[in-house]
Amino acid sequence: MGLAERILQGDVRAAARLMKEVDDQVPSAVQELKKIYPHTGRAYVLGITGSPGVGKSTLADKLIAAFRAEGKKVGVLAIDPTSPFTGGAILGDRIRMQTHATDPGVFIRSLATRGAMGGLSKSTNAMVHILDAMGMDIVLVETVGVGQDEVDVFKTAHTAVVVTVPGMGDDVQAIKAGILEIAHIFVINKADREGADRTAADLTMMLDLGHYGERDWRPLVVKAEAIRGVGIEELLEAIARHRTHLDRGEVLATHLRERARAEFLEILKDSLAGRVLEGLEASGRLEQIIAQLAAKETDPYSVVEGVLKERLRD
Amino acid sequence: MGLAERILQGDVRAAARLMKEVDDQVPSAVQELKKIYPHTGRAYVLGITGSPGVGKSTLADKLIAAFRAEGKKVGVLAIDPTSPFTGGAILGDRIRMQTHATDPGVFIRSLATRGAMGGLSKSTNAMVHILDAMGMDIVLVETVGVGQDEVDVFKTAHTAVVVTVPGMGDDVQAIKAGILEIAHIFVINKADREGADRTAADLTMMLDLGHYGERDWRPLVVKAEAIRGVGIEELLEAIARHRTHLDRGEVLATHLRERARAEFLEILKDSLAGRVLEGLEASGRLEQIIAQLAAKETDPYSVVEGVLKERLRD
Repeated sequence: MGLAERILQGDVRAAARLMKEVDDQVPSAVQELKKIYPHTGRAYVLGITGSPGVGKSTLADKLIAAFRAEGKKVGVLAIDPTSPFTGGAILGDRIRMQTHATDPGVFIRSLATRGAMGGLSKSTNAMVHILDAMGMDIVLVETVGVGQDEVDVFKTAHTAVVVTVPGMGDDVQAIKAGILEIAHIFVINKADREGADRTAADLTMMLDLGHYGERDWRPLVVKAEAIRGVGIEELLEAIARHRTHLDRGEVLATHLRERARAEFLEILKDSLAGRVLEGLEASGRLEQIIAQLAAKETDPYSVVEGVLKERLRD
Repeated sequence: MGLAERILQGDVRAAARLMKEVDDQVPSAVQELKKIYPHTGRAYVLGITGSPGVGKSTLADKLIAAFRAEGKKVGVLAIDPTSPFTGGAILGDRIRMQTHATDPGVFIRSLATRGAMGGLSKSTNAMVHILDAMGMDIVLVETVGVGQDEVDVFKTAHTAVVVTVPGMGDDVQAIKAGILEIAHIFVINKADREGADRTAADLTMMLDLGHYGERDWRPLVVKAEAIRGVGIEELLEAIARHRTHLDRGEVLATHLRERARAEFLEILKDSLAGRVLEGLEASGRLEQIIAQLAAKETDPYSVVEGVLKERLRD
């Protein structure tokens, strides 16, 4: 039996293996992804984002426990910034979530953010498909919520949760570009800290001003103290409300089309560039081009035009 | 006279116009960029990054004043996260830098971070070329330092400065993935605040552990209080030291090749995808593909393979 077939039967080791192959960009992984794709679309994808230190992982941990209590299987994808330093911090998070490590109904994987050519959202989509295909009811995607890459990742979630803490005050701006516009739910964690009400009021005011949120969904604001389990029920309720909203009318269909479009474009972009670059590298022309560019003997725009003329059919 | 010729003569309005065309992705802009490219490479590109609120703009302001006092012309590129909310904050920064607005030796432009297809680093490279070609001695590129896009932008700088503040403590991790590895200089701004020595010690320790920095350059740590002008001289000295280092041996040549390679790849990737997408959109096939994907009638990997087979020559 191939990897895909084993994954579709819920085989954890097969899933782990395909995920590793996707991460390592093993070419044959695509053949397996093709086979599982038609069987995806059942899992509910929950995005959780927030700066380091806001308690995302503790919150994720409590959510996992709550979903498990409902008998749901949960896949977790943690997107790690690739940095030797943050590596350590992230490791701590992973360990915190290890309370679920022995639970066969929970599958946790972290995904490194690679270089620009790697395509973070492409890999994330593939990982979500694998978790989905292996029968996870919920797929929790956790990111630090910065950069266009992560915005793209966040967009793939059915419900997108932004976690913040009191006293971010003026620094709500620290929640990065594009994230605010996508958020369906804001969690003010560590709500026992001074300023929680103020932060909630600030957020509500900005929502009133229509500064962000999708046109047909006003983001919900939930106060929580994840470490003591406070607010988790309210958060679950907010998620359920958003899920009901999605299920109504055209909203989910639109979301699915947008997801499909974004994923297709990402794979197209990556594959085109990969294929053309392979050719340039194999023939030794890439190094030649770069030497000429560094010497200002030509310009990148003209070189690209030439390459396109050569490689693209009309 | 065309835009390019006017820019090469230092015409500010021509430069502003081409920058706007680049930003709006006007196709003819590429023809002008081709003409100026051979005349670029004289400006020294200084990258400044740090989270919102660390005082980047104040620091930039003081640096501009110092460079101006040396008679150097300074171009400033401020990369803005595209968010209605941060929009406001950024505007404040811009206003702070407006002390130089009437100085003909200073040219300030902000650049919005667009969607993923826009190609932030592609636009930034073009803007740097324009400022370079119009005769700016220094080009200062200011970013908030998050995400792969901005890491790419930061990499184009000759000297990359990361600004932080005391008490980021554990949150030095907030300085994002990839940025630490690139930094040539760390500035601990607001150094009158409690914890400045601790932050400096933490940074130094991490440098000692070899956690980041390029192999042949140990990053310098500078304490500053930008608002009072304290530490600016030390920062300028640190920049000069790194510049001397770059000028020695193969370092600069390597940097230029890496820059050329990154820029070429970025333009290639973007143009390939743009051209192929145009075709799919014009024929109405894109919508068809997306509908099929959303319905799970096919998978994106197979569709992309088909498109590549159709459009790519061997």
